[in-house]
Amino acid sequence: MAMALRNAFYAQSGGVTAVINASACGVIQTARQHGDRIGKVFAGRNGILGALTEDLIDTSAESDEAIAALRYTPAGAFGSCRYKLKGLEESRAQYERLIEVFKAHDIGYFFYNGGGDSADTCLKVSQLSERMGYPLAAIHVPKTVDNDLPITDCCPGFGSVAKYIAISTREASFDVASMAATSTKVFILEVMGRHAGWIAAAGGLAADEQHDLPLVILFPEIVFDPDKFLARVDAQVKRYGYCSVVVSEGVKGADGRFLADAGAKDAFGHTQLGGAAPVIAGLVKNALGYKYHWAVADYLQRAARHIASRTDVEQAYALGKAAVEAALAGQHAVMPTIVRTSDSPYRWTIGQANLSEVANVERKMPREFISEDGFGITAACRAYLQPLIEGEDYPPYKNGLPDYVVLKNVPVAKKLAGSFVV
Amino acid sequence: MAMALRNAFYAQSGGVTAVINASACGVIQTARQHGDRIGKVFAGRNGILGALTEDLIDTSAESDEAIAALRYTPAGAFGSCRYKLKGLEESRAQYERLIEVFKAHDIGYFFYNGGGDSADTCLKVSQLSERMGYPLAAIHVPKTVDNDLPITDCCPGFGSVAKYIAISTREASFDVASMAATSTKVFILEVMGRHAGWIAAAGGLAADEQHDLPLVILFPEIVFDPDKFLARVDAQVKRYGYCSVVVSEGVKGADGRFLADAGAKDAFGHTQLGGAAPVIAGLVKNALGYKYHWAVADYLQRAARHIASRTDVEQAYALGKAAVEAALAGQHAVMPTIVRTSDSPYRWTIGQANLSEVANVERKMPREFISEDGFGITAACRAYLQPLIEGEDYPPYKNGLPDYVVLKNVPVAKKLAGSFVV
Repeated sequence: MAMALRNAFYAQSGGVTAVINASACGVIQTARQHGDRIGKVFAGRNGILGALTEDLIDTSAESDEAIAALRYTPAGAFGSCRYKLKGLEESRAQYERLIEVFKAHDIGYFFYNGGGDSADTCLKVSQLSERMGYPLAAIHVPKTVDNDLPITDCCPGFGSVAKYIAISTREASFDVASMAATSTKVFILEVMGRHAGWIAAAGGLAADEQHDLPLVILFPEIVFDPDKFLARVDAQVKRYGYCSVVVSEGVKGADGRFLADAGAKDAFGHTQLGGAAPVIAGLVKNALGYKYHWAVADYLQRAARHIASRTDVEQAYALGKAAVEAALAGQHAVMPTIVRTSDSPYRWTIGQANLSEVANVERKMPREFISEDGFGITAACRAYLQPLIEGEDYPPYKNGLPDYVVLKNVPVAKKLAGSFVV
Repeated sequence: MAMALRNAFYAQSGGVTAVINASACGVIQTARQHGDRIGKVFAGRNGILGALTEDLIDTSAESDEAIAALRYTPAGAFGSCRYKLKGLEESRAQYERLIEVFKAHDIGYFFYNGGGDSADTCLKVSQLSERMGYPLAAIHVPKTVDNDLPITDCCPGFGSVAKYIAISTREASFDVASMAATSTKVFILEVMGRHAGWIAAAGGLAADEQHDLPLVILFPEIVFDPDKFLARVDAQVKRYGYCSVVVSEGVKGADGRFLADAGAKDAFGHTQLGGAAPVIAGLVKNALGYKYHWAVADYLQRAARHIASRTDVEQAYALGKAAVEAALAGQHAVMPTIVRTSDSPYRWTIGQANLSEVANVERKMPREFISEDGFGITAACRAYLQPLIEGEDYPPYKNGLPDYVVLKNVPVAKKLAGSFVV
């Protein structure tokens, strides 16, 4: 008996990255190569919300060129969302609605591209489909700049942020070094990472044997000690003439509060909005009197496809491809992973994890990746991080700007009568 | 009679850029090609301070490879400074000291690489040397991300910042567009430009015929009107689902004060340090209730050699080269300039300005470059800006990072007995 031709559903979840569309590219191109098994690939407009509201995008309306361009286009081409489904009982209506929409559009493959929460959702959808006797290959495609998924050696999206932060830290340090004699002596760069210091750690790569830069890194894993920090900065300025500080947005003081929530108020009495960097700058200014500058990279860091890591792009694509291949091999409730087989030369291959082992497990940065004094990275951390930023993968340019693709995102005609309020 | 072999002095002045070292490369390589006329090129350690304190760097100790690497290395390889010499009478001791140091090291060529202030200094040094009967070819090499020098069509350093800001605005806008259904709706990017909106204007290039992005630009040339601004942002969010704001650090309110100095105080009562972006974010949050994110590019923008404009790099190099050629042709008190001969296709050549016409003249952005409503750029502005960000000029990479050069910066033995206190 010939296998039935069934459609696929792909959705992007949570914060987007420079390479999540490379995974989408891997999924769609691989599905197109298996037209005997996979019919159309539908995408959720704004992620899983698109499935709940039956707002599907027909990716078959996009040319091969447009799909190929996803490989070098940052952010989420179909829209993503922050919408967390809870337990099967609590969110039963949502899960049943998903299956109802999948049935209506003859969807036999579900590719969910996200972090820990979406791995959990993907697992529950798989379990419910089984319970309901609806055949569905639910596969999770990992993605998160936070690099906090278990089992996989790293997460697509992280390597490119790491590269951006390492380069920016090096470039800004060169700038400050040139000016320090008469101007700025302390430069502070705020980076993402509310729960883990992976991104902050990447700032440490800016310095190496050829580039002796005075860096102080503030990790969310280390309770902020203002006196120790100021003493370190002062020592670096006295030795090098300047100092660069990389501060994670997730750094907390001894009182357990984020530095960024230090409670500054504007002239109207409104609470000032975020920013660990200006808080650190204030400390430096008031305690040491040095001229400072600060930057907050925010979305620039995770959208910076112009300087994406080639390793990261290749892995993002390979994981999308592997997800489709796993589904075609009859697997479900799994996530393809990156397996590191060698540090130097760096070698990796694709592995697989059961979603039951992925969902709700957060990988922390090992303490042995942070130097004993808490302000830097260790050799082990460098050996882990360095390959992930390796290689460049420049997008094509037009008129001096990256020529990123904007898809048509043609809607699929609705088949269900009722609407669903999310 | 054979021309005497005399040494050259090169110094970097003011805020550094992604391409000021490309000008240094142009100066030093061209001088090396004229070894029959120019002896050694000395550089000032930390700019003109190095001349005043007789702290000269011997660039002849650097290999041809190291000098070639300056072309792709950001910031100031010899150090720069913010040190303004005043009028010839007020700062007579400084000017005379410069001539004394030049004499001691047989310096017959003075190449000063900077903005408006250094053009003025260069002119005065030239005048004084003439008055003192000391033969000196003083040539100014233009440099400033502020793009505010007169006569020259543009200033080296600006094109690369413009490219960085245009790309970052496009990338972050793609990010926000993907997330806006459930998350951030307004993104704010703060850019440099205390007196002129050239850099903010570059954000406008992020949108074009293929990329219809909702941008609102806040220029220092336009008095900030909170109500009008909020109405515009709200309209863009209602139409596109999101809005990106590019705000110049130099934006002022009706009271003439910088937005960045809105007077926020931290929990300890200290004045919060700078940042127009968080002030704008606060306004959006309080008046419209939209979820926001903000970034402050700060030094990242002017140090971003990894994504420098090829046009900018070529012009920076060509101006350094032209400065040496002008000196060899017997000229002094001049500045080589960029002359635009065609917008499309873009063509430029090297011209020349007398320093007396450059010093103390600041070029403002024409009002007709800003759209009537004050929130965008006009077609004329686009035609001016677009060629300046054209082309990429990637540095070489090692271990995933740009392999920027760090020079040896060997000091020249002092010849003068006394020290000079600056």
